[in-house]
Amino acid sequence: MTNSKLWIISILLLLNYPVLFANQIISVADFGLKPDSRVNSVPYVRKALEACRKQPGSTLFFPKGRYDFWPQYTVEREYFESNTTDNNPKTLAVLLDSLHNFTLDGNGSSFVMHGRMQPITLDHCSDINLKGFTIDWDIPLTSQAKVLKVTPDYFEIEINTHESPYIIENNNLVFVGEGWKSKLWSIMEFTSDTHLVAPNTGDRIGWRNYHAEEVSPGIVRLSDPSVAAFYPKEGNWLVLRHNERDHAGIFLYHSQRINLEQIDVYHSCGLGILSQYSQDLSFNKVRVVPNASKNRILSGHDDGFHFMGCGGFIRIEECEWAGLMDDPVNIHGTCVRIVEILSPTRIKCKFMHEQSQGMEWGRKNEKVGFIENQSMRTLGTGTMTSFEPLNKSEFIVEFQAPVPNSLKVGAALENLSCTADVEIRNSFFGSCRARGLLVSTPGKVIIENNIFESSGSAILIAGDANQWYESGAVKDVLIRNNTFRYPCMSSVYQFCEAVISIFPEIPKPDIRYPFHSNIRIENNKFYLFDYPILYAKSVDGLSFVNNTLIRDTTYQPFHYRKDGITLDACRKVIISGNRAEGNVLGKTIRLHDMKPGDLKLRNESFFQLRNKP
Amino acid sequence: MTNSKLWIISILLLLNYPVLFANQIISVADFGLKPDSRVNSVPYVRKALEACRKQPGSTLFFPKGRYDFWPQYTVEREYFESNTTDNNPKTLAVLLDSLHNFTLDGNGSSFVMHGRMQPITLDHCSDINLKGFTIDWDIPLTSQAKVLKVTPDYFEIEINTHESPYIIENNNLVFVGEGWKSKLWSIMEFTSDTHLVAPNTGDRIGWRNYHAEEVSPGIVRLSDPSVAAFYPKEGNWLVLRHNERDHAGIFLYHSQRINLEQIDVYHSCGLGILSQYSQDLSFNKVRVVPNASKNRILSGHDDGFHFMGCGGFIRIEECEWAGLMDDPVNIHGTCVRIVEILSPTRIKCKFMHEQSQGMEWGRKNEKVGFIENQSMRTLGTGTMTSFEPLNKSEFIVEFQAPVPNSLKVGAALENLSCTADVEIRNSFFGSCRARGLLVSTPGKVIIENNIFESSGSAILIAGDANQWYESGAVKDVLIRNNTFRYPCMSSVYQFCEAVISIFPEIPKPDIRYPFHSNIRIENNKFYLFDYPILYAKSVDGLSFVNNTLIRDTTYQPFHYRKDGITLDACRKVIISGNRAEGNVLGKTIRLHDMKPGDLKLRNESFFQLRNKP
Repeated sequence: MTNSKLWIISILLLLNYPVLFANQIISVADFGLKPDSRVNSVPYVRKALEACRKQPGSTLFFPKGRYDFWPQYTVEREYFESNTTDNNPKTLAVLLDSLHNFTLDGNGSSFVMHGRMQPITLDHCSDINLKGFTIDWDIPLTSQAKVLKVTPDYFEIEINTHESPYIIENNNLVFVGEGWKSKLWSIMEFTSDTHLVAPNTGDRIGWRNYHAEEVSPGIVRLSDPSVAAFYPKEGNWLVLRHNERDHAGIFLYHSQRINLEQIDVYHSCGLGILSQYSQDLSFNKVRVVPNASKNRILSGHDDGFHFMGCGGFIRIEECEWAGLMDDPVNIHGTCVRIVEILSPTRIKCKFMHEQSQGMEWGRKNEKVGFIENQSMRTLGTGTMTSFEPLNKSEFIVEFQAPVPNSLKVGAALENLSCTADVEIRNSFFGSCRARGLLVSTPGKVIIENNIFESSGSAILIAGDANQWYESGAVKDVLIRNNTFRYPCMSSVYQFCEAVISIFPEIPKPDIRYPFHSNIRIENNKFYLFDYPILYAKSVDGLSFVNNTLIRDTTYQPFHYRKDGITLDACRKVIISGNRAEGNVLGKTIRLHDMKPGDLKLRNESFFQLRNKP
Repeated sequence: MTNSKLWIISILLLLNYPVLFANQIISVADFGLKPDSRVNSVPYVRKALEACRKQPGSTLFFPKGRYDFWPQYTVEREYFESNTTDNNPKTLAVLLDSLHNFTLDGNGSSFVMHGRMQPITLDHCSDINLKGFTIDWDIPLTSQAKVLKVTPDYFEIEINTHESPYIIENNNLVFVGEGWKSKLWSIMEFTSDTHLVAPNTGDRIGWRNYHAEEVSPGIVRLSDPSVAAFYPKEGNWLVLRHNERDHAGIFLYHSQRINLEQIDVYHSCGLGILSQYSQDLSFNKVRVVPNASKNRILSGHDDGFHFMGCGGFIRIEECEWAGLMDDPVNIHGTCVRIVEILSPTRIKCKFMHEQSQGMEWGRKNEKVGFIENQSMRTLGTGTMTSFEPLNKSEFIVEFQAPVPNSLKVGAALENLSCTADVEIRNSFFGSCRARGLLVSTPGKVIIENNIFESSGSAILIAGDANQWYESGAVKDVLIRNNTFRYPCMSSVYQFCEAVISIFPEIPKPDIRYPFHSNIRIENNKFYLFDYPILYAKSVDGLSFVNNTLIRDTTYQPFHYRKDGITLDACRKVIISGNRAEGNVLGKTIRLHDMKPGDLKLRNESFFQLRNKP
């Protein structure tokens, strides 16, 4: 290089002149894609991504506007997505495939999908920033309606037929979208003013044997005499559930160091953001909420953020969820059942949940826990040397050393390497079907400064190796400075025993070997209209300390539990320094299968041990 | 084969037992495609067609119902379609590619398209039957609206926003469909009661500088002070023209012996049925009409049946057209301009019309006419030995023998091998924009027992080598027993000089060499509200005989021609035996550039030669 060139470059560097890096911003417009053009963006974005691949560190920029995505020209690929129906191949609107050190900047643009598809997929990527866009459908895969009229014999609803075109077929209300047709099979009810799940309605009735008829275009009359007592309330909103969950909104697969920022996922064909076998993930101002500009009550089809087998550190900050038809956040692994012990080091296993099949369950050198499925006791751990799939549901795992002798067919394996530390802060868990936050990871978990308006339990710490096979005993959970508002626990769903429900499924608990451990619940505010505050089963080391309990009268108490705290087969429990405002109901603590000495009540002005009945 | 087997087969043959041929009916259901399923039919039909290919003589059968077609999985192929915008590749929903001896039987099914596509394409096929289906779009590529209110300053229209979603953008009315966005640029007006083109409205005004605003969803206010005098009438229907003509509805390309039967083309992205370089085509009960079940006024985007460079025999029986934005039937070739005479046998030519570019103009051994473009006189003919494209617009033709010395740059070539005999019978030419039937082929043409409700000329025999370059002098045309009703000639379009307009474009006619010849117009019924009945230019041998002329008073006369028959540079004209009912206006015959001896008036009670002014 000549001296003069060096001199020029030095000056540019001194001026912090952007020329040197300007070519790293690549606009989709350079590939002929204009915002608001209504053309299919798929082929343009594919070309632009290939250009980005050649320039590590580049940013793909979208001039602000609307971009439409149709299935034509999408990549189709087989993915076995956790907790998702195995309809394959998946249709991938935007695929980042083995891409590294890259930013996708939507600059506030709307990405509008058409038909069944997965808007964003990251497959074996690293150091990726996704930011500044919304994801929605003109015709979502779930529908909504306003309740116009209710009589003892039927009720009438109004459907926006632009958003949710339908037909009546064999007396069913059948929605017809872009490449699909789908029958209404469930209803969720939201109050018209607050957009909260209407109290005591969630999952209450089946809704499969109804009779539908059209009164006039957009007005449908529904009836089912067997559930007439549970017809919704006039003026309320209904989310009409149909379709299958077969694509995530954003799918992070075998990817690392992924940051999502300022993204609104207004809808999805299944889980909102599914992270699977990925690690070091951060979510900042990411929302899975209804699109208010479209008067939507519904948002995603199922869970909000779903993590399966993820490792490293998961950080969730200033995020928000509402209008979902399943849990806002669910962090777990996947247990598998031992179906044959082939040798002391070779074990044949099976995925027990249909929506787990086909997943790559483990890799060489990963650590595995051996769980006895009746007591849920971990019998020991081992290190994998190989993972060998036999078919979609079965595989063989080989270990460095012989597995414990006590390990039998029917026991379960848990992948302990694919577990993460988790921090969830300053987030808003709005009203959705089911629970708020499900967490089952042995990593360090901090849940802090969040607001919960869940309709079931706000926080569920489950873990099982018998039904859902969502693995994960927790070892270190701090729940601090959160606010639990009405309507927490206003509807009843599976495992929802209290506002905070620690409910591992253990067929035969063994008090000597608690499943979960080290859970601290401190300095939270609970607004409570009903009795159950905390339910905990099989925890070693649990504190409920310095919380404020405030009586809420939005709805009348109805839960069958009449204790504030129920403890079942727990050890080393501290309840201390809690205080109540108003006539808080759940004053008593009930113990099951526990020695009273395992509960320490100190400086406690509110809770008291229930006298044996 | 054993004797017993032979014996069984003989019995089966005697009984005409269908077993032997049963496997020739192949149902799309066998490939997993169910009617009314709303899934994308494209991949299923592709598989089914491949199965049919393996069984010559087979029928592909569609169980009756609705079948949807999306662009995903379509074949895309470059086609230079005549009179169609060169947007390539074309998106082909159903492609019959080099298929022979095959039937597609829709069994009354509806084929519903999505986005810009060509529903049916036959490429190098032979002995094909297409029958029993309708073609439509949920969201058509043209829109319609009802006129709600008209004031001096604006008018308001009502749009079905399910069928034609729109946005207002920069004060334009912009329709947004499945993968496209398209601005309103022209309006056609239809009367609300009759669904005929409103009189004296067609192509009357430009409609590009309007101002649009939304009054409420579906109600749009339009204004353009420069054309306020021509605002439509309250209650009338408007066809709102937008989008480009870039795909035919059905495209028959280099195909032979093709029969279409009982097909309703309710819409298309361009020409309804385009036949190009094909021969021996029959159309029976094929309609390009509005879908009445959807309250449509509009049908296809442009022409109904369009034939370019077709040979053999074209038979059109019991067909119908209405609501088109261009001519129901147009049969022509394509002239090209000589741009360089490279040698006595090598000539460089150019497609002069943008929508002709890229076509394969000729093949070895085809016969070519040499046309002097000022007089339109054919100077001679030659036989091609080669056709060599240079680019989309230019090519070189080589001939067996030297071309005439008088042939100069600027003259035109006409392909005389690609010309057909034509019979059009028992058909209904409903009200459309522009004319009814355009025919320019040297073959034998019979137009018989048809009804015309065209808004311009019912029949136009044109031919030019200077502007549209749609070639073809006629040599033998019989127009017999047809009924020409109101609103024929109630609007003015290009070349519409009378109900029957024989209007070749000849810059410098030479009376010694008439362009057309041998046209007989016999025993027709004309319902006439205005003067012009027949206009004929440069015809050698023309008869207008035994026709019945009936006064119609639906609209007031307005055409600038005040003669019933105008003859310009014709020879051997016979007008005889015509009779009038009521006060028919066009009583006079006007001659231009003709010897009076070339007109024979015999046994004529109605027409009389106009005295020189």
